[in-house]
Amino acid sequence: MATAMETDAMRRAVALSARALGDTAPNPVVGCVILDASGAVAGEGWHRRAGGPHAEVHALLAAGERARDGTALVTLEPCNHTGRTGPCARALIEAGVARVVYAVADPSPAAAGGGRTLREAGVDVDSGLLAEEAEAVNIAWLTSVRLGRPYVRWKYAATLDGRIAAADGSSRWISSPQSRQDVHRLRAEADAVVVGSGTLLADDPQLAVRGVDGATQPLRVVVDTRARIALAARVLDDAAPTLVVVGEDADTAHLPGVDIARLPYAEPPGPHAAPTGPGGIDITALLAELHGRGVRSVLLEGGPTLAGAFVAAGAVDTVTGYLAPALLGAGPAALADAGISTIAQALRLDVIDVVRLGPDLRVSAVPAVPAVPTGPAASAVPAAPAVPQES
Amino acid sequence: MATAMETDAMRRAVALSARALGDTAPNPVVGCVILDASGAVAGEGWHRRAGGPHAEVHALLAAGERARDGTALVTLEPCNHTGRTGPCARALIEAGVARVVYAVADPSPAAAGGGRTLREAGVDVDSGLLAEEAEAVNIAWLTSVRLGRPYVRWKYAATLDGRIAAADGSSRWISSPQSRQDVHRLRAEADAVVVGSGTLLADDPQLAVRGVDGATQPLRVVVDTRARIALAARVLDDAAPTLVVVGEDADTAHLPGVDIARLPYAEPPGPHAAPTGPGGIDITALLAELHGRGVRSVLLEGGPTLAGAFVAAGAVDTVTGYLAPALLGAGPAALADAGISTIAQALRLDVIDVVRLGPDLRVSAVPAVPAVPTGPAASAVPAAPAVPQES
Ligand SMILES: NC(=O)c1ccc[n+]([C@@H]2O[C@H](COP(=O)([O-])OP(=O)(O)OC[C@H]3O[C@@H](n4cnc5c(N)ncnc54)[C@H](OP(=O)(O)O)[C@@H]3O)[C@@H](O)[C@H]2O)c1
Ligand SMILES: NC(=O)c1ccc[n+]([C@@H]2O[C@H](COP(=O)([O-])OP(=O)(O)OC[C@H]3O[C@@H](n4cnc5c(N)ncnc54)[C@H](OP(=O)(O)O)[C@@H]3O)[C@@H](O)[C@H]2O)c1
Repeated sequence: MATAMETDAMRRAVALSARALGDTAPNPVVGCVILDASGAVAGEGWHRRAGGPHAEVHALLAAGERARDGTALVTLEPCNHTGRTGPCARALIEAGVARVVYAVADPSPAAAGGGRTLREAGVDVDSGLLAEEAEAVNIAWLTSVRLGRPYVRWKYAATLDGRIAAADGSSRWISSPQSRQDVHRLRAEADAVVVGSGTLLADDPQLAVRGVDGATQPLRVVVDTRARIALAARVLDDAAPTLVVVGEDADTAHLPGVDIARLPYAEPPGPHAAPTGPGGIDITALLAELHGRGVRSVLLEGGPTLAGAFVAAGAVDTVTGYLAPALLGAGPAALADAGISTIAQALRLDVIDVVRLGPDLRVSAVPAVPAVPTGPAASAVPAAPAVPQES
Repeated sequence: MATAMETDAMRRAVALSARALGDTAPNPVVGCVILDASGAVAGEGWHRRAGGPHAEVHALLAAGERARDGTALVTLEPCNHTGRTGPCARALIEAGVARVVYAVADPSPAAAGGGRTLREAGVDVDSGLLAEEAEAVNIAWLTSVRLGRPYVRWKYAATLDGRIAAADGSSRWISSPQSRQDVHRLRAEADAVVVGSGTLLADDPQLAVRGVDGATQPLRVVVDTRARIALAARVLDDAAPTLVVVGEDADTAHLPGVDIARLPYAEPPGPHAAPTGPGGIDITALLAELHGRGVRSVLLEGGPTLAGAFVAAGAVDTVTGYLAPALLGAGPAALADAGISTIAQALRLDVIDVVRLGPDLRVSAVPAVPAVPTGPAASAVPAAPAVPQES
C-alpha cells in the first residue's frame, strides 16, 4: 500500500513525465520523484531525450545522500538493461533506496525485469500506483510496444455536418484559432506528422510546430506515391526534418537531397485506392518504416483519403475531431472510403474526452475494441518485432 | 426589485410552464405562482392547452381569497385580450392582487398590454425576473411570434464523420437507444414533425411519440411533391394526425381521406432542387401553411435534402445533432446542398449545449446571427403577419 505522500509524489512524477512528450522517441516518457527516509521530497527528474539520463538518474542526482533509505516513485518500471547510462534498477540499489513504487510495468522485452532485480537486491517494490494516469500520458509509447508499430492519432477539423472543406475546396478556416493552436500542441507531442499527397498538393502545408515553447519538431512525412511533390514545397523547408514516401518505381530525379523512402504498394488495390495510383502505399509498410526510424507516435493529419486507408488497415488508435459549429451542406467529408459498406461494419468508438476550444468542440475517441486491421491488408500485418528502446 | 421568495416562486412558475411544452399550440406555455400577503405560496397553475384556462386563472382558483393583497409571479406578461376565459390582467385585478411580476413581455400584438392595464388599475408591476430561463422554455413560441412562422429545430443523428447512413443505405441504428428516446421527447415538445419524401420512402417511419407519458402527439407532416406516398404508409396510421404536402398539380387520387395541402413549388429551382421534382415545395409556403394550422414549433427530422432546403431558406432556428462515436467513411452526409459553395458562406452557429446520451453526444447550436433566408427565396418572405393566439 502506498502512503498519501507517495501518491502525491507519483502524481508529481506523472506531471513531470508529460513535460517531455514528443521529445523522447524512441523512448517512453518517464518521471521520478525521490522521497527521503522521512517522506520529504529529496529530488525529482524526468527523461528529457533519448541518449540523455533516465528519470531515475536525474532524480538520484538531485537527491544525493538523501536517497539512502528513501523511496523512489517512478511512472514506469525502472529499466534493467545496460544502455548509455547503465540500468536504473542498479543505480537505485547503489544509492541505497529502500523502496521503489512504479506505476506501470515495462512491457518491452529488452528493458523489463527491473522490478525483479530490485526485489532480489532486497528493495521493497510496489507497483500500480496511479497506473491509469501514468498509462494515459505514456499511451503512445506503450501502444507502440504492444503493437510493434507507432501509435496513430488521426486528427481532423470538420463542420457539424462532417465537411472538411467547402464545395469549392476552400477550408481556411473551418476551425477556430484555439483549435489550430491545439493542433500545434498535438504536433509537438508527436514524433511524426503524416499527410497524403492530396493534402500536400491542395494546401502546401508546412506541418512544423509553431507557437509551442521548447517543442521538438516532429518528422514531417508526405505519402506521395508518384513523387509529385515539388522541391519548393513548404514541407521541404528546414523548419523540421521531412521524409517523402514514394512508390517503389517513382521517379524522384527532381528531388535531390530529399530524404526518400521507397515502399511497396498496397495489395490488392482496395476500395480506397488512390484515383491515379495503383492503390497507394501499403499502410503497414509505412508504419514499419517509421517505426524503424524511431517514430513511436504519429499524428495523422489527413486528408480523408489517406485516413480512410489507415482506418481500413486498423491503424487508428485515437480519433481527435475538432468540430466547428458551422454547416456547409457540400464539400468533402472528414473520412473517405475505409472499406465499410453497411452499418454493422461501422468502426465503433468510445468518447474519452470532450472539450470546448473557443467556439469549437474537440472530441477524442478510441476504438471500442482495440484497433485491428479489417481491410485486405489484414493478413499482411507482421508479428510485432521486439524493438529495443534506445538508452 | 424582486425578493428571494419571489425569485423562488418564479423559478417554480418556469418549471410548471415547461410541463405543457408541445401541448398548448398555438398558445405559449405559461406558469404562474401566487404568493399571499405574507409571501407564502397560495396557489399555482400552468396553461395546459389552447381553449383551457390560462395559468393565472388556474393559480387564482387555487389561491382563492389568499390572493388578495398577494403577488402573482407569471412567466409571460398577463394577456389583455378577451378570449374564452377573459383577459388575465382583469382577473388579477378583480382578485385584489397587489403586485404582479412577469418574466417576459408578450410580443404578440393581440395579447400585449396586460402590464399597462395592471398598472393603470394601481397594481405594482415588475418584469424581467428570470427572463432568460423563461424565454428559453418558451423559445419556440416567442420565435414564432417574432418571425411569423413556426420555430424550426432541425434534428439529425450522424456518425463522427458526419454520415447519416452507410453506403448501402442502412442506418438502423446509428445512434444509441438513449438518443432515440430523447428524440421522442423532442417530438412530444413539438407541434409538428416534418420529413421529406426521401426519408418517407427509405424508412417508412411512423413519426409518432412513443414512450413519453401524457404526450400530445404532434402533427406528422410529409413533404412529398408528387404524392408518392402509399395509403399503407405507417405515417398514415391513426397514432397521430398527418398532413401530406404535395405540389399544386400532384395526383392524389390514391389517397382518399388523407389530409392534403397543395403548395407552390420553390421558384426558381435552386441548387437544392429535388432530383425529380421541379425544385420541391417552397419552404416559406410550407411554414406559412403550418403556421396557419396553429403549428408554432416544428421538429425537422430530415432527411439531408429537405434539411438543405430549410437551411438555404434561413428557416433553421436550432440544430440538434446526435453524434454517435462511429466512423463509416461512406454514405450520405447529414446535410445536403444548402446553396453554400465556399467557406465564407458557411452557416456559423453557436453551441448552446453539449450532453452525453449513453455513448453519444448531443450537440445543440443556434445560428450565430439569427436565421435569415440566404437562398433564392429570400425576397419572397412575407412580413410577419399578426397572428393572434387562441384563448
Ligand atoms: N480539415 C482537415 O482536418 C483536413 C486535414 C487534411 C486535409 N484536408 C483537406 O483534404 C483535402 C485533401 O484530401 P485528399 O483525401 O484528397 O488527400 P490525402 O488523403 O491527403 O491524400 C490522398 C492521396 O494520398 C496518396 N496515398 C498514398 N498511399 C495511400 C493509401 N494507402 N491510401 C490512400 N491514399 C494514399 C494518394 O495519392 P498518390 O497516388 O498521388 O500518392 C492519394 O490520392 C484538401 O482539401 C485538404 O485541405 C483537411
Ligand atoms: N440519421 C438521421 O437523422 C436521418 C433523418 C432522416 C433521414 N435519414 C436518412 O436520409 C435518407 C433520405 O434522405 P433524402 O435526403 O433522400 O430525403 P429527404 O430529405 O427526406 O427528402 C427529400 C425529398 O423531399 C422532397 N422535397 C419536397 N420539397 C423539397 C424541398 N423544398 N427541398 C428538398 N426536397 C424537397 C423531394 O422529393 P419529391 O420531389 O418527391 O417531393 C426530395 O427529393 C434516408 O436514408 C434516411 O434513412 C436519416
